[in-house]
Amino acid sequence: MKMSARNQLAGVIKKVKGGTVMTEVVMQVGDQELVAAITSGSAKRMKLKAGDQVFAIIKATEVMIAKE
Amino acid sequence: MKMSARNQLAGVIKKVKGGTVMTEVVMQVGDQELVAAITSGSAKRMKLKAGDQVFAIIKATEVMIAKE
Amino acid sequence: MKMSARNQLAGVIKKVKGGTVMTEVVMQVGDQELVAAITSGSAKRMKLKAGDQVFAIIKATEVMIAKE
Amino acid sequence: MKMSARNQLAGVIKKVKGGTVMTEVVMQVGDQELVAAITSGSAKRMKLKAGDQVFAIIKATEVMIAKE
Amino acid sequence: MKMSARNQLAGVIKKVKGGTVMTEVVMQVGDQELVAAITSGSAKRMKLKAGDQVFAIIKATEVMIAKE
Amino acid sequence: MKMSARNQLAGVIKKVKGGTVMTEVVMQVGDQELVAAITSGSAKRMKLKAGDQVFAIIKATEVMIAKE
Repeated sequence: MKMSARNQLAGVIKKVKGGTVMTEVVMQVGDQELVAAITSGSAKRMKLKAGDQVFAIIKATEVMIAKE
Repeated sequence: MKMSARNQLAGVIKKVKGGTVMTEVVMQVGDQELVAAITSGSAKRMKLKAGDQVFAIIKATEVMIAKE
Repeated sequence: MKMSARNQLAGVIKKVKGGTVMTEVVMQVGDQELVAAITSGSAKRMKLKAGDQVFAIIKATEVMIAKE
Repeated sequence: MKMSARNQLAGVIKKVKGGTVMTEVVMQVGDQELVAAITSGSAKRMKLKAGDQVFAIIKATEVMIAKE
Repeated sequence: MKMSARNQLAGVIKKVKGGTVMTEVVMQVGDQELVAAITSGSAKRMKLKAGDQVFAIIKATEVMIAKE
Repeated sequence: MKMSARNQLAGVIKKVKGGTVMTEVVMQVGDQELVAAITSGSAKRMKLKAGDQVFAIIKATEVMIAKE
């Protein structure tokens, strides 16, 4: 399945913290950490857990840039 | 300045393509490519160009996860 | 590939309008129209055109609700 | 009130699940299900409940496209 | 029509700059400036122009916080 | 640090309500209220509390417009 989201970053899940409605997923992407906040419904459906090989999917319009 | 956006990924700009209202910025983040679509007003204000050291800023609620 | 985005709506592309950086894609989803604004880079990479069977992917945190 | 969000999909609420800060709202839109994650403050203010006729409001820049 | 988006900031349009697919709208909200990037289709449909009284609608999950 | 997000609205925190994964932050921006939903991890990291001088950071592509 091809996706229009330009950013599909390969990573590994380090930690999953579930709340009633939202779940925080911390991933290692290369040598940097990336955090997602997704619905707990999705986290359960996908059985996400530490050690899973995943992709962080990010639409280009959601990426901002900062410069010193 | 501390920012609530959890994801602040260090990278280098590879390419900047400007349109009337939006500008696409392609960055190298570690060994992966990351693309942002920001307003052309911001790209000009920040004088973004290839070779610039920047940070890609992404709110955790904007990150999705995919798993085989 | 399982995706955390909760909304994966099946539809058919009606119209594609490309700009320098962004492209507008109009889809028919059931008996309602749905519009996406994606990067032109993605639209070209995916060779999107009228008649294509596609899915509109929308993260739950991006959906608002209105009520009379 | 006219809204710039291009997507205003008529639907009916099937389920509302509230957390401390966020609330998940599951809607039936045509023959497909649509899920929103909104603040619990909004869900209470709007007194959202199963059976409510609502509109799912989605900005075009938040819609991604997937294609086999 | 009640909206779940928590932020509905009253303002006046200062400038509208249209591109092929996206349009930038600069508003005065109180004593601060606020910029929106919406689809040109919406800007035309709503006949947006300088001097219009409008509301800037922003979902709470799209607001980040910075602190010195 | 220069940021591409066009909207950097100065304000003061009125209330912070924390959940397991997400935290709601209510700010006074000029004479209007603005609400953010950020991760609780960020709210703790930044030690956000009522009375803090902060900036609400909002990407232009996340701002919609409504007009009577």
